[in-house]
Amino acid sequence: MTNRIPLKHPRYLSLKTREKLVDGLKNGLVVTHGLIAHGRGEAFDYLLGEHTSQNALCAEKVASCLLLISKTPVISVNGNAAALCSKEIVKLSKLTNASIEVNLFHQNQKRSEVIAKTLIKDGATEVLGVNSKSKFAMKQISSGRRFVDKSGILNADTVFLAIEDGDRTEVLTSLGKTVISVDLNPLSRTAQSSNVTIVDNIIRAIPNMIDFAKKFAKNEISELSALVSQFDNKWNLVQSTKLIRHGL
Amino acid sequence: MTNRIPLKHPRYLSLKTREKLVDGLKNGLVVTHGLIAHGRGEAFDYLLGEHTSQNALCAEKVASCLLLISKTPVISVNGNAAALCSKEIVKLSKLTNASIEVNLFHQNQKRSEVIAKTLIKDGATEVLGVNSKSKFAMKQISSGRRFVDKSGILNADTVFLAIEDGDRTEVLTSLGKTVISVDLNPLSRTAQSSNVTIVDNIIRAIPNMIDFAKKFAKNEISELSALVSQFDNKWNLVQSTKLIRHGL
Repeated sequence: MTNRIPLKHPRYLSLKTREKLVDGLKNGLVVTHGLIAHGRGEAFDYLLGEHTSQNALCAEKVASCLLLISKTPVISVNGNAAALCSKEIVKLSKLTNASIEVNLFHQNQKRSEVIAKTLIKDGATEVLGVNSKSKFAMKQISSGRRFVDKSGILNADTVFLAIEDGDRTEVLTSLGKTVISVDLNPLSRTAQSSNVTIVDNIIRAIPNMIDFAKKFAKNEISELSALVSQFDNKWNLVQSTKLIRHGL
Repeated sequence: MTNRIPLKHPRYLSLKTREKLVDGLKNGLVVTHGLIAHGRGEAFDYLLGEHTSQNALCAEKVASCLLLISKTPVISVNGNAAALCSKEIVKLSKLTNASIEVNLFHQNQKRSEVIAKTLIKDGATEVLGVNSKSKFAMKQISSGRRFVDKSGILNADTVFLAIEDGDRTEVLTSLGKTVISVDLNPLSRTAQSSNVTIVDNIIRAIPNMIDFAKKFAKNEISELSALVSQFDNKWNLVQSTKLIRHGL
C-alpha cells in the first residue's frame, strides 16, 4: 500500500513506517498487539515533532560507545524492531561485535524463526534465541520474554533493548546488566529503569547509532568509558519529558 | 485472550479494550491501520490518566444535548467504534433519535456489512451507509470517507463522529453541519475543527452521553439550546491540552 501515500504528505515517513508494520503482520514478523504498541509510540513521536532531539542524539552516542566497550553485548530484537529496521540492526551488531537475540513478549517459535530468517537475509551471521535447547527461563519475568539464550542475554554485560514492552528492564538491571533501551515514552517503567534511555523513534535511533559506532570505533576504551560515565540518564529523561510537554 | 490479563493489572481496562480491537480484526470489523490508530489514542489516554476529566464530562453533556435538539442527527461509525462500543452506540442513537451510518476511511463493502450486522445484532433497527444505491460521493474528501448516505450524513444537521481519522471534519463544518467528535488528541485537525470535541476515550464517552441523554430527554429545547450555546470549544481544547501536559 506504500505507493498510495503521497510523497508530499506531511507525515509521509510516519505513514510509510506504519505500512512496514502492516507488512510485518502479513509476513508473520509482527503480532496484532505490536501494531497497537507502535501506535502508542507514534503518539509520543508526534509530540516530539517526529525528529531526533539533541538530547536523544546524545543518548545514542553514549549507547554506541557503551556497546563498543562492552565484552558481551546483545541486541534484543522483537517483531516490530525486525519489521522496522532489520538491516540496520545487523549493521550495528557487526560494528559493535554485539550478538543478536530474538526475544518476544508474545513468545512463538514459528515467529521467532521468521524474525531470525529476516535478520539472516539482511546479513546476520548468527541469531540467538531461536534454538530451544539453549533457552533459559528467567523466573523473575512473567511474559514470553523470560526465555533468554544461555549464550546471549543470560551471559550479556550490556543488553540493548530495541523496542521494549516494559516488563523486564528492572529484572535485567537487578542482575547487574547494563540496559540500553529505545522508548518514545520517557515516563514508562522501561525508560525509567534503563541505564541509557533513547527517547527517539527506532528508525532514526539505530542509523544514528551506526554513525556513532563508525566514528568511535578506533577510540581508546578509556575515552569511550569517560563519555559513558559522564552520561546522566535521569537528566536525559527529564529533558525528554520537557520536550514532549513543549510539543503540547 | 482476555482471560490472560490479571484483574489486578493496573491497566486492566486498557488491555481489555485492546483485546476487543484484536478480536475486531479477527471478526472483520477492524483493519490493521485501525489498531495503530487505537495505539495512538491509548498514549493520549495514558497521559490523561485513563479517566474522564470534568472538562470532557462537560463536552459529553453538551454533545448529548446537541443530539437531542438536532432534527437530523447522525452517528457516524467506523470499525474501531463498532468493535469497542456497538451496543452503546445503538442505545445512544435510540435515546437521541439519531441515525447510525457506517463510514470508513478504508472503504470496503464487505467490512461495512459486517459492521452493520454487528450494530443490528446489538439492537439497531436501521444502519445507513451500506446500500450502495443511496451513496453519494463528497468530492472534497479524498479517502473512502467521501461516500456518505443520502439519507444520512449528506442530509444531517449534526454529525457525531465516533472516532475520527481526521480528514473530513473541516469539510463537514464548511457545509454548515455541526460536528461532534471524540478525539483523545486535542491538537488534531479533527479536534480543532469540530464544534464540540470530546477529549476522552470512546468507551467512557458514550456511556456518559447515554446518561446525559436520559437525564435531559424531557427538558425543553430552549433549555438544551442554552446549554449548548454556552459551550466554548476553544476553551475546552485549551483545558484538555493542559490536562495532558499536566500528565507529563
